[in-house]
Amino acid sequence: MSSIIPVKLPQNPYNIAIASNSLAQLGAHISPLNLGKKVLLVSSPEIFDIYGEMAINSLKQAGFEVINHFIPAGETYKNLDSIAQIYDTAVAQRLERSSTFIALGGGVIGDMTGFAAATWLRGVNFIQVPTTLLAMVDASIGGKTGVNHPQGKNLIGAFYQPRLVLIDPSVLKTLPVREFRAGMAEVIKYGIIWDGDLFTQLEAAEKLADFSDISETLLQIIITRSCQAKADVVSKDEKESNLRAILNYGHTIGHAIESLTGYSLINHGEAVAIGMVAAGKIATKLNLWPSEAEIRQNNLIQKTGLPTTIPSSINSSEIVDALKIDKKVKSGKVRFILPTQIGQVIITDEVPSELIFNVVEELKR
Amino acid sequence: MSSIIPVKLPQNPYNIAIASNSLAQLGAHISPLNLGKKVLLVSSPEIFDIYGEMAINSLKQAGFEVINHFIPAGETYKNLDSIAQIYDTAVAQRLERSSTFIALGGGVIGDMTGFAAATWLRGVNFIQVPTTLLAMVDASIGGKTGVNHPQGKNLIGAFYQPRLVLIDPSVLKTLPVREFRAGMAEVIKYGIIWDGDLFTQLEAAEKLADFSDISETLLQIIITRSCQAKADVVSKDEKESNLRAILNYGHTIGHAIESLTGYSLINHGEAVAIGMVAAGKIATKLNLWPSEAEIRQNNLIQKTGLPTTIPSSINSSEIVDALKIDKKVKSGKVRFILPTQIGQVIITDEVPSELIFNVVEELKR
Ligand SMILES: NC(=O)c1ccc[n+]([C@@H]2O[C@H](COP(=O)([O-])OP(=O)(O)OC[C@H]3O[C@@H](n4cnc5c(N)ncnc54)[C@H](O)[C@@H]3O)[C@@H](O)[C@H]2O)c1
Ligand SMILES: NC(=O)c1ccc[n+]([C@@H]2O[C@H](COP(=O)([O-])OP(=O)(O)OC[C@H]3O[C@@H](n4cnc5c(N)ncnc54)[C@H](O)[C@@H]3O)[C@@H](O)[C@H]2O)c1
Ligand SMILES: [Zn+2]
Ligand SMILES: [Zn+2]
Repeated sequence: MSSIIPVKLPQNPYNIAIASNSLAQLGAHISPLNLGKKVLLVSSPEIFDIYGEMAINSLKQAGFEVINHFIPAGETYKNLDSIAQIYDTAVAQRLERSSTFIALGGGVIGDMTGFAAATWLRGVNFIQVPTTLLAMVDASIGGKTGVNHPQGKNLIGAFYQPRLVLIDPSVLKTLPVREFRAGMAEVIKYGIIWDGDLFTQLEAAEKLADFSDISETLLQIIITRSCQAKADVVSKDEKESNLRAILNYGHTIGHAIESLTGYSLINHGEAVAIGMVAAGKIATKLNLWPSEAEIRQNNLIQKTGLPTTIPSSINSSEIVDALKIDKKVKSGKVRFILPTQIGQVIITDEVPSELIFNVVEELKR
Repeated sequence: MSSIIPVKLPQNPYNIAIASNSLAQLGAHISPLNLGKKVLLVSSPEIFDIYGEMAINSLKQAGFEVINHFIPAGETYKNLDSIAQIYDTAVAQRLERSSTFIALGGGVIGDMTGFAAATWLRGVNFIQVPTTLLAMVDASIGGKTGVNHPQGKNLIGAFYQPRLVLIDPSVLKTLPVREFRAGMAEVIKYGIIWDGDLFTQLEAAEKLADFSDISETLLQIIITRSCQAKADVVSKDEKESNLRAILNYGHTIGHAIESLTGYSLINHGEAVAIGMVAAGKIATKLNLWPSEAEIRQNNLIQKTGLPTTIPSSINSSEIVDALKIDKKVKSGKVRFILPTQIGQVIITDEVPSELIFNVVEELKR
């Protein structure tokens, strides 16, 4: 099973290739792009242990000279120091303008490798080989690359498009279930904001909460349609001026919950799941969509093993306050993405604070 | 006297405005661009001492909120650490996507401020206010931004276009004469590679070796035509695939001389001057252009107070060897830009090493 999604950016068109066991064909997928012979494979030791040999063998077989660079796993290493270390390897190994940086890993590795590729020699070739569901359906598409500043996430970065995104769904078999579900939160998001058909297919599945619950066919559909959704949205708005905002569905209250719980108790996907539940309820209360739709959304979130309630430890007014300092706030008004039906949303800054507060209170467990 | 050069890049068109005493109008020049109210003015303490107040007053008068950031003068500070410090100021002062980074200084300040602007929040507005002749006619145009790696110059960077380049030729009155001449080397380069008329006007001037030698009218012409030449070339080849290579006229042997003298004895402009003399002689020996043209070129270089001979301390075969490890070498062949007449050059990799050696020997003083 395999699919190709062409991302039709005027200046930098590229393909997203989705095929089971394609990691073993990495080299063959890159060859037609006519890039230089030197590749820098960036990964974490953990991921490299499992998938490094397969990637390297296929690259060597296709005639590439492979240099490895490791970054320890985890968001804490997503900083400028790690980028400086990639530069050091690049200079020591004499990587050239025609060389290619390959990210083999989750969103953290992808964002950093992309930023290093964007800025080494003012831009070398970049290829994404995402190994988490979140990186497959979200982080690897859209050209956002970058690192964190000690004072805030993703403050340093560049828009930089890859030459290829190669997705091998079979690598998800080793992904911890909580990480898998974090990716599923974004998948459900695409179902609500863009692709009602994807939503229906997810609804039809008996189980969804783990890699082993899902047939190869359904997984291929999930990844392909999600990538297509994100590619559609970002192609229409490459530099994030308006439409792209809909990708923040569930993220408004989600981000507030993540930051109030110190980015540890609740992970990004879980926070987005709760954020979608909250946004869905706001939409119902504003009569934007029928309550049956809200129930369908929440059932799907539950079936995926994601949370639908807010920890009682969080103070509701703290959430409302946190919204106001979020960067998506324009002139004091909080911008919400709210569904009008499954598969469609609107952008609005007309949600009264009391309504947000009440919805948050209702969702306390 | 004032000129406007529109740089017609398909995605990021902008203007180069050249006008005497325009620094005092900086704010008024920016206002029509409809950017955010916050500006970060990046400069060195030395330049700020002379021109900072004028710039800030005009910005404040136009309603901007100005934040200052200082980087010590000099190429040694052109590194990732200085960029990290700009980020720290940006986060501390809550600069936003709509904010504008302004570079007030020479090429070092311009390259760094541009790179910080390219990578802060994945790109904020950027304005160049070059204060050296080299930065006016070369560094501020073309979108190359970046910093040095300990192992090599300009290895880290991005292509990022400014929203405006504002050139006030009158600030050159405080520029040390050696820096002024370094800029003149690039001006003469444009005369040879692109604009024969500019060359003729330079030839017609009685004196050229210092700011005070040159009339306001001629200086305006020099800067305008040079900017136009560079803008023409880079607009036709934004990402440096082929035509842009002609900007390296004089730089092939020039770079070798710079690096063999440790970037101190001979500055960039002086090295380029010598490099043009060498390339001109190679062209004569290959019968590409008449020896009268070579003589006219060399006379102009001399009138500008730039060197035309190679220090005898440098070994000629070291120069030939250095050419081969330069990054402009493709598959072992050294690429030369050679004039065919005043105002026109060709790109060739067909110059025999013996010829290069002999020419270098001839130029020894
Ligand atoms: N660029 C974008 O548009 C974008 C979008 C969303 C998120 N992001 C970024 O992505 C990052 C989050 O990405 P993530 O969720 O992939 O996290 P991650 O990269 O930290 O990966 C999560 C964990 O899974 C491990 N892992 C990865 N693949 C594995 C596999 N196949 N088997 C076993 N373990 C595996 C990793 O080592 C890591 O410990 C954040 O930094 C976020 O800012 C970027
Ligand atoms: N981006 C590009 O396309 C490009 C092109 C050419 C060069 N460059 C870069 O530009 C840099 C060289 O630029 P530069 O020659 O302007 O050097 P510079 O920025 O170091 O300035 C030279 C010196 O002049 C001083 N100075 C600047 N303006 C002054 C003024 N008006 N009065 C008195 N003193 C003043 C500076 O403080 C400095 O000491 C190099 O780093 C080079 O890599 C970039
Ligand atoms: Zn998300
Ligand atoms: Zn130069």
